[in-house]
Amino acid sequence: MSDRLTIGYRLTCAPGEAPAEKARDIALEQTVELPAECVPEAVFEAVVGRVETLEEEGGRALARISYPVDAVGGELPQLLNLLFGNISMKAGIRIEEILWPPAVVERLPGPRFGVEGLRRLCGVATARPLLCAALKPLGLAAGELANLCRELALAGVDIIKDDHSLANQRWAPFDERLERCSGAVAEANAGSGGSTLYFPNLTGAAGDLGRRLAEIRRAGCRGVMMSPLVLGFETTRSIAESAGLAILGHPALTGAFFAAEHGIAPELLLGELFRLIGCDGVVYPNVGGRFVLDQQDCLAINDRLRRPLGRHRPAFPVPGGGIDTRRMSEWIDRYGPDTIFLIGTSLYREPDLGSAARELVAKLRAER
Amino acid sequence: MSDRLTIGYRLTCAPGEAPAEKARDIALEQTVELPAECVPEAVFEAVVGRVETLEEEGGRALARISYPVDAVGGELPQLLNLLFGNISMKAGIRIEEILWPPAVVERLPGPRFGVEGLRRLCGVATARPLLCAALKPLGLAAGELANLCRELALAGVDIIKDDHSLANQRWAPFDERLERCSGAVAEANAGSGGSTLYFPNLTGAAGDLGRRLAEIRRAGCRGVMMSPLVLGFETTRSIAESAGLAILGHPALTGAFFAAEHGIAPELLLGELFRLIGCDGVVYPNVGGRFVLDQQDCLAINDRLRRPLGRHRPAFPVPGGGIDTRRMSEWIDRYGPDTIFLIGTSLYREPDLGSAARELVAKLRAER
Repeated sequence: MSDRLTIGYRLTCAPGEAPAEKARDIALEQTVELPAECVPEAVFEAVVGRVETLEEEGGRALARISYPVDAVGGELPQLLNLLFGNISMKAGIRIEEILWPPAVVERLPGPRFGVEGLRRLCGVATARPLLCAALKPLGLAAGELANLCRELALAGVDIIKDDHSLANQRWAPFDERLERCSGAVAEANAGSGGSTLYFPNLTGAAGDLGRRLAEIRRAGCRGVMMSPLVLGFETTRSIAESAGLAILGHPALTGAFFAAEHGIAPELLLGELFRLIGCDGVVYPNVGGRFVLDQQDCLAINDRLRRPLGRHRPAFPVPGGGIDTRRMSEWIDRYGPDTIFLIGTSLYREPDLGSAARELVAKLRAER
Repeated sequence: MSDRLTIGYRLTCAPGEAPAEKARDIALEQTVELPAECVPEAVFEAVVGRVETLEEEGGRALARISYPVDAVGGELPQLLNLLFGNISMKAGIRIEEILWPPAVVERLPGPRFGVEGLRRLCGVATARPLLCAALKPLGLAAGELANLCRELALAGVDIIKDDHSLANQRWAPFDERLERCSGAVAEANAGSGGSTLYFPNLTGAAGDLGRRLAEIRRAGCRGVMMSPLVLGFETTRSIAESAGLAILGHPALTGAFFAAEHGIAPELLLGELFRLIGCDGVVYPNVGGRFVLDQQDCLAINDRLRRPLGRHRPAFPVPGGGIDTRRMSEWIDRYGPDTIFLIGTSLYREPDLGSAARELVAKLRAER
């Protein structure tokens, strides 16, 4: 079966709906979009998904359907179609397993830097976790954001990333923000001997992304944050593959896929797909914060980002939410050293942002 | 309020969750991503959403929150973030109203052709509905698909569109399919005096889309099908704005947003957003077919695609599913003449595809 893409769907059946029928329907819908009797036999054999196993339990079932790799045809958009394109508009179908064949996995770029590479970019020689601070809020002027960057860099934060809502608004237009924030970080590094990185939020019109990427490299940045679902998975893949920059993937819009009985399991969407398309780190809302992921989801995302997956490097989980000085040690114990802890609100609550950041940095540097 | 973007959210509250609190949280989350007490007063005034109205009813509520247009900053990706980026990862929030301010609506391209323009491209002088046939299944060779194109064109079908799963698979690679299918349609038109259009499915690697678009134009095609959520909203907008081709938007992946209590109402996602980013026609799964949209959703999508929206042209609804010769008149009565009826399965069920298509064409031409 390793030459086929096998997907495990959790099926939740409506009254009168039979799991076996629902599984067969998915196998057709995601390939030929025709009833079986309308499909020429040779096409049926070559193309239509095969229901490999079906485990029923009450009104629910786990169906594993395998598809020929040729149905993907080597392109990411069609992989997304095959995964969830049309069945997104049905009910009670949740992707809970993906068995990736080498032919699909090897064509996707995966992390260019990954855990080791990103640590190296940050100048961190030990195996400690990294600290990432979110630059916010939207509405501050570029100079004010640059001042925050300076403080955070002097405190020794490893990565400073724009909030995902910082785009090209008049308060801090992209070009000015890039120049001032990257300048402030470089200046602080030069003064302190530090190696803090600034990752601007890459967004904008399709026709302007190439120019922005060039500006980002020119400003000396080594990475960007991007939202794959907002900018497009394929746009993200293409940039990850060719831009030479580290990518922090942001989960904006992904929550639409996280319904209990319909969608794609978070560890597959954020942990596997984001990694395969080239994210070196994946931001997600930590348990106990403001969002729906639970502890099991978070641990599963961490696992999928780090575990062996073809030739691909492990990527960093970047949990954000509920992490502060008091609880940092507990989170390190729970999530391990190959983690980037993302700090936002808990920093901005402090009367002195710089000293709060210094405390967090000291905690992390004491690790290992 | 017309200089603000006002969004109406249907809130479904968990036990102990107060609607007013949930609304305030959204207003912060979608802008500054900080608790109110961490936001400088001037920023709070200028940036944070304002809860304008809150109508409670049981555990549910409709909250209208207005945002400054400046928070969008003129870019579509940030508009998507503002609409549903982070709150996608919360629960019980469904966007049911969007009051578009001119400053946002006028920056988006909208349909280049729209209802009138697409009728003109199809050479249809009367106000009758159009007929679109889906080219399928995946797995046929390019020559076999071209044969189907010829039959459908000779039957007088207005538009032939690739199934959304036809990408660049070995059975019918994009370039060969384009050449043979567009050639077959042109030949049939030349012989019959018809004016059938062939819309290939535009997909592929980001770096290859420009080349494919050029090939599509070179082949004489006047439009394409695209899946905005698969290729990226911004990629779609940019192509709609600059490629000079009509766009049929396909709803692949959009169903993730159609949960009953969380997401974006189908008429807003498919009817307004797809139209605003430049779709001249929007494919959706018709009620009674294989998908979750109900009759009210379909009628609402039709309405949003056609009704006045700034300077933008009306777009065609393209319902697919459950439409055949027997029921065609009923659907025309229900959906009106400014509709493109999409026929797939019901054609391929017939022993003679060509004569079934001719019958449908005759039905439509008898209208008005």
